[in-house]
Amino acid sequence: MKLNTSLVYYGKRGMTLENDINITNEYYRNNNIALIYKKPTPIKILKLDYKTSKITNAFFETQSTLDYNGVVNGKYIEFDAKETKNKTSFPLSNIHPHQLEHIKKVIYFKGIVFLIIRFSSLNKDFIIMGNDLIDFININSRKSIPFDYINKKGIPIEFKYNPRLDYISALNKMEVLWVVERKK
Amino acid sequence: MKLNTSLVYYGKRGMTLENDINITNEYYRNNNIALIYKKPTPIKILKLDYKTSKITNAFFETQSTLDYNGVVNGKYIEFDAKETKNKTSFPLSNIHPHQLEHIKKVIYFKGIVFLIIRFSSLNKDFIIMGNDLIDFININSRKSIPFDYINKKGIPIEFKYNPRLDYISALNKMEVLWVVERKK
Repeated sequence: MKLNTSLVYYGKRGMTLENDINITNEYYRNNNIALIYKKPTPIKILKLDYKTSKITNAFFETQSTLDYNGVVNGKYIEFDAKETKNKTSFPLSNIHPHQLEHIKKVIYFKGIVFLIIRFSSLNKDFIIMGNDLIDFININSRKSIPFDYINKKGIPIEFKYNPRLDYISALNKMEVLWVVERKK
Repeated sequence: MKLNTSLVYYGKRGMTLENDINITNEYYRNNNIALIYKKPTPIKILKLDYKTSKITNAFFETQSTLDYNGVVNGKYIEFDAKETKNKTSFPLSNIHPHQLEHIKKVIYFKGIVFLIIRFSSLNKDFIIMGNDLIDFININSRKSIPFDYINKKGIPIEFKYNPRLDYISALNKMEVLWVVERKK
C-alpha cells in the first residue's frame, strides 16, 4: 500500500475541530496569550430532584450565540467552529439563522467575530470574518459559499503541533487585535 | 399596621438580583446598548440516551469563570452578581477561589471585570471593579470587605424601572467604557 502523506497528515489532526480549538485555547490560557473559553451547552431541565440536585430529565438546547468567546488585549472575541467535508464550497445550512443575527449584533458592538471553517477533505482551516460572511450573504442568493471566496477573503490558519490551530497569530497578521481601530 | 416604605420599595425589586440583571441585559440588547449574556450553567452529564438525546442523570457544576460576559464598544466585559443580607460587610466566602483567579486573568488581558454586589438589607447595589477587589484582598487578611470600603471604592448602581439595574450607565460615569485607555 502506497503511503498517502495527505492522509497521514490528516491523521495527526486529532479527533475534531472542536477538540483542536479546545486544546489551542488551553495553550493560549496557560501561556497568557488569550483568555477564550467554550461556552457551556445550554440545557433545558425538565425534571430536577431538589433534595439531591440530580437532574433526571433534560435536553440540549441550541446555542443562539456562538460557541466560543473571550478577551485579548481588552477586545471582545467571539467565534464558532464549522466543519465541512465538501471540497468546493461551505454550505450555509451549517449556520443557524439565530447565529447570523448574533454575528450582526457583535459587529454592531465592535466585537471581533468570525467563523473558523475547516474543509476537512482539503486539510485547510480558515478564519472568515463576520463582515465578510454577512457581505457574501447580502450580495448572493447562493446556499453555499464557494471555496474560492473563502480562500480569497479568509485568513488561513496554520496547523501545527502547539498551539494546534493558531488562530490568534492568524488574526494578528491581519492586525485585527493590536490596532485601536480596524483597517478599512 | 404602619406602612414601611423601605420594605415596599424592596418589594418592587423583583425576585432576585439575577432576575434584575437578566431583564437589564435584555433591555440593553433590545435597545442596542450592550450585548451581554448570562453563560449557561455548566452541567456534568453522567447518563445520556443517545437515541433520544435525553439526559437522565446529570449534576450542576461550579462555574470557574464569572456568570455574565459580553461586549460594548468593542470592549470585553465580564462580571458576577453577589448578594448579601449582611449590613456592614460583604463576606469573601461568596467568591469562589477559581473566580478570584479568573478575575486576575481578565485584568491581565485588559478586560473590564467587576462584581455587582447587592446589600439586600440596605437596598443598595454597587459595582466593585476587579482591581479594587484584588487590592483589598492583597492588603487585608480580613474575611469580609467592610461596607465602607465598597461605599467608597464602588460605583453605586441606580435601581429604576427600566433598565432595572443600569450598571452600564454606572460604568460610563467612571469613563470605563468609552475611553481608549482606562484612566490611572
